[in-house]
Amino acid sequence: MDVAVSRGSLRIGIAAEDFLPWIGRDKSGKLFGFEVDVAQDLARVLGVRPEFVETPFADLLDALTAGRIDVIISAYSITTDRARLALFSVPYGQTDYYLLVDGKSLPASASDGDYDVEGYKIGVIADTIGEDIAARSFQKAEVVPFPDDNASREALSKGEVGAIIAATPIPNFMMMMEPDRYAIGSEPLYSSSEAVAVRPDSLRFINFIDEWIEENQASGRLQAARDYWFDSLDWEPRATGENEADIEKPAQ
Amino acid sequence: MDVAVSRGSLRIGIAAEDFLPWIGRDKSGKLFGFEVDVAQDLARVLGVRPEFVETPFADLLDALTAGRIDVIISAYSITTDRARLALFSVPYGQTDYYLLVDGKSLPASASDGDYDVEGYKIGVIADTIGEDIAARSFQKAEVVPFPDDNASREALSKGEVGAIIAATPIPNFMMMMEPDRYAIGSEPLYSSSEAVAVRPDSLRFINFIDEWIEENQASGRLQAARDYWFDSLDWEPRATGENEADIEKPAQ
Amino acid sequence: MDVAVSRGSLRIGIAAEDFLPWIGRDKSGKLFGFEVDVAQDLARVLGVRPEFVETPFADLLDALTAGRIDVIISAYSITTDRARLALFSVPYGQTDYYLLVDGKSLPASASDGDYDVEGYKIGVIADTIGEDIAARSFQKAEVVPFPDDNASREALSKGEVGAIIAATPIPNFMMMMEPDRYAIGSEPLYSSSEAVAVRPDSLRFINFIDEWIEENQASGRLQAARDYWFDSLDWEPRATGENEADIEKPAQ
Repeated sequence: MDVAVSRGSLRIGIAAEDFLPWIGRDKSGKLFGFEVDVAQDLARVLGVRPEFVETPFADLLDALTAGRIDVIISAYSITTDRARLALFSVPYGQTDYYLLVDGKSLPASASDGDYDVEGYKIGVIADTIGEDIAARSFQKAEVVPFPDDNASREALSKGEVGAIIAATPIPNFMMMMEPDRYAIGSEPLYSSSEAVAVRPDSLRFINFIDEWIEENQASGRLQAARDYWFDSLDWEPRATGENEADIEKPAQ
Repeated sequence: MDVAVSRGSLRIGIAAEDFLPWIGRDKSGKLFGFEVDVAQDLARVLGVRPEFVETPFADLLDALTAGRIDVIISAYSITTDRARLALFSVPYGQTDYYLLVDGKSLPASASDGDYDVEGYKIGVIADTIGEDIAARSFQKAEVVPFPDDNASREALSKGEVGAIIAATPIPNFMMMMEPDRYAIGSEPLYSSSEAVAVRPDSLRFINFIDEWIEENQASGRLQAARDYWFDSLDWEPRATGENEADIEKPAQ
Repeated sequence: MDVAVSRGSLRIGIAAEDFLPWIGRDKSGKLFGFEVDVAQDLARVLGVRPEFVETPFADLLDALTAGRIDVIISAYSITTDRARLALFSVPYGQTDYYLLVDGKSLPASASDGDYDVEGYKIGVIADTIGEDIAARSFQKAEVVPFPDDNASREALSKGEVGAIIAATPIPNFMMMMEPDRYAIGSEPLYSSSEAVAVRPDSLRFINFIDEWIEENQASGRLQAARDYWFDSLDWEPRATGENEADIEKPAQ
């Protein structure tokens, strides 16, 4: 914390891959998304400039350990594997993972087990929790890794895979757009909590971050941000690069 | 923690201002209120004598930093500004802030925005979260600071201001007493969590305090204390100095 | 944490007394129960061998302080008394304590106070929270300590005591087996939270343990384990030593 304050900037590790509504780039390459807002607010309360260090998702923990970044703020789920090398804050988000099925490939079914058949392809994003979930949940189906969320969704859309592992709110958005085509299982395959990660010796910093999250939760500001990014598509013109003047920003 | 234990007393920073049911003085000047009970219980489990250091609310953080007190227990809300200079425990309370309106000055309205008009006066307690909330929520109305809760309520009662920012349970008590006169908006303007604050190097102490709060929450003792102070007026004779023998104390 | 990792084993303090479904031994003396599963999973995520150090419940804190064990995982409730000498993790369990009454000795009553009469005997397990609860809740009845849960339940069954203090899910199991005989009060006498305890200087270790609990809670794995141990009797053949092949194990 003191290092960032004396440097005058917070080095934020954020995924180089697009993963909207969490993380994306507009047509000019400018970062935006829920995680970007969260990170900017942390820099603001620290009184420093946010310095985004775009890093492949799979390399974020290495970048933290090596000191190239001060924090990971990147829809980063708490796992014991990661907790071996990082301290986590209290969670500021919760994500459910569903099997999102293209009804063209197999009929919608009440049981996810019905999709675990030879020759059925399930798309995942490589090196994420989704890949682990697929490996655990499906033994017969083929798990196909994609470099990022766009590639995985495109493969589903083109019929190259029959289903993908998708994190909320993505399944909702897909079903809204093509309600006759996509369906999800009734139960999430997995759920995880997202938090800020810092280096293991930063106990003081993590306590500060915890209180910032507590304040934003108690005050309702965190929920307002979640409503904008996860329960609306008001942010979508920002992704497609339409006139900024038309874009409705979240109330802060 | 060790310092307080070897000294044999816990130096508790508590607001010098009255703010019942959290903090008040009876006719003999003796401290009482929800926060006083909380602080006395912490001293008890530490096995030391509680030593209350009555300090203007706005000076509590300075007193903690300067080492004049060991802890702040004073309906002290978690904010990132304060977390820069103090460690907070897990919350032991949650407070909602409402606009409490005198129906004589303006008719009760469904929207708090209807009160944000030129010439309308809204009373707040100076240097508290209420003052920040008013500044953020009302641009046209005049925000009038008062030294303490009594002064702010008296100004409302005398018609010197049209409304005040009031923390639960105060709006309920006011509306109980004069149901035809006072009203609140349907949504709180803000909510905050109250916790114990210690110096930033006291990680061990804050963990002990967290477990004490956890035990009191799990066992229902904290809720029993809240019921007595925030959902009843059984404590009121203590404020007016009536015969102590008649006063019903909370079950512990 | 580092000590356990470099040693290659986690020394787990667990009660020497039986207390199923938390802790028990099968006919061959092998440990099993909810707490055993919890402890084995912690060793697994640390990548080390679990080494159970069976210790009388009342001596667990001494064993931790003396360094004979690394952690206490033993249905160990958070109390401020214990927090003076140990760091606790976030809770991974919650237990309610009821007065479990034998309807043969006194008729079932709506109020626990009706059982607080001269000559009435209430059994407890010595040196546990149950003994403290009985001492606080009953002044006239005689509180009779037993060395462990089996002895306390046997005394109730034989009519040697009229009631016992029993922790969930034990009252449910007893009432399931003899619905016409046993009854409980409508409200728990007390509730507590169970957590992992480590030495006070192990702040880094407790953070790792917190994240492991957070992950297991978010993913639903902790609830699945609780369902197996606390809401079913599928584990019972393991206690009676029946053919292991017939035993249904919890889904992990």
